[in-house]
Amino acid sequence: MDRKTLDTLAEQIAQRLFVPLEASGRHVHLTAAQAQTLFGHSLTPSRPLSQPGQYLCQERVTVKGPKGELKNVAVLGPEREEAQVEISLTDARSLGLTPPVRQSGDVKGSPGAVLIGPQGTVSLTQGVIAAQRHIHLPPEAAERFGVKDKQLVKLQTYTSRPALLQDVMVRVRPDFAPAAHLDIDEANACGLMPGDLGRIVP
Amino acid sequence: MDRKTLDTLAEQIAQRLFVPLEASGRHVHLTAAQAQTLFGHSLTPSRPLSQPGQYLCQERVTVKGPKGELKNVAVLGPEREEAQVEISLTDARSLGLTPPVRQSGDVKGSPGAVLIGPQGTVSLTQGVIAAQRHIHLPPEAAERFGVKDKQLVKLQTYTSRPALLQDVMVRVRPDFAPAAHLDIDEANACGLMPGDLGRIVP
Repeated sequence: MDRKTLDTLAEQIAQRLFVPLEASGRHVHLTAAQAQTLFGHSLTPSRPLSQPGQYLCQERVTVKGPKGELKNVAVLGPEREEAQVEISLTDARSLGLTPPVRQSGDVKGSPGAVLIGPQGTVSLTQGVIAAQRHIHLPPEAAERFGVKDKQLVKLQTYTSRPALLQDVMVRVRPDFAPAAHLDIDEANACGLMPGDLGRIVP
Repeated sequence: MDRKTLDTLAEQIAQRLFVPLEASGRHVHLTAAQAQTLFGHSLTPSRPLSQPGQYLCQERVTVKGPKGELKNVAVLGPEREEAQVEISLTDARSLGLTPPVRQSGDVKGSPGAVLIGPQGTVSLTQGVIAAQRHIHLPPEAAERFGVKDKQLVKLQTYTSRPALLQDVMVRVRPDFAPAAHLDIDEANACGLMPGDLGRIVP
């Protein structure tokens, strides 16, 4: 087998054994109406993210809590049915909030915050969460790893500060690309660097 | 056995099986001369810390890096032979620094920072580290857990976001009290709350 074939094979095998680890920075999801209020126009895609259809927007907002604020916070598109602010627990402390650790979309009873844009302000009564660590998988990858949607698994990180993270939720959808998402506290706790891999331990 | 005796016994057994988990916030250690420069006087103890002889001081400093600064940073006493700034990797990013993950005292080649006090300023050429997670143990506890000074062990956290942290360094000294020290990124990644316990896995 020649060198190039071997490299390709090794890469394919790595992809079957491991999932890429990605750090999710603090970010905001908005409704179409909120985007209009904050920016005077709908969201402008800036670059695609690892999950197909998701993108970073050109727009940025300030998130204000009872104790402090975070400026220049990323907005992710496309627009959603309900706003959501995903921050780390370190961020939460500087804002003066105590968000629950939840899966995206599960915002009921979570604290609110004020979003400040160049054209207006939106006051959320709920929507601030710390994202529960999770692994995006398309169905074929889930089958290969022997895991199911909503299953809690362990994730061994192969990072400079290695850890076996527990209670990591598997999320399976046909439009997902394989990736484990950690928040910034978790990424730093693991010493995560771009390109690092993890292994699912059912 | 009466209720009170049973409670005491249970507590004693818990202490033999587990170690308390503690979150170490960002802090600074100073030399006697630096304390004079920054505050115009030597350090003033405010309250004792879990490790015998160590204390939080009344004094606070601002730590300034190339990109930003952290105000109101805790100073720990007693004074040391060399200054040290212990921050999380989240803090490091906001300062614009990339400190190594090291044990306390091992600052060679680490980045510097500027310390600003009410009476003066100290420019460090080195001393900024992210503390490597570690477990303080007195010799009798180390023996009981079957571990040695400088041994790397795993630490199972019994926390709301549980994890098996790897490469946790055991540090044994007669004047240590049993406690596992995590930085704020690690504490948040584990969802650590006061009173949470961990278990050493050799």
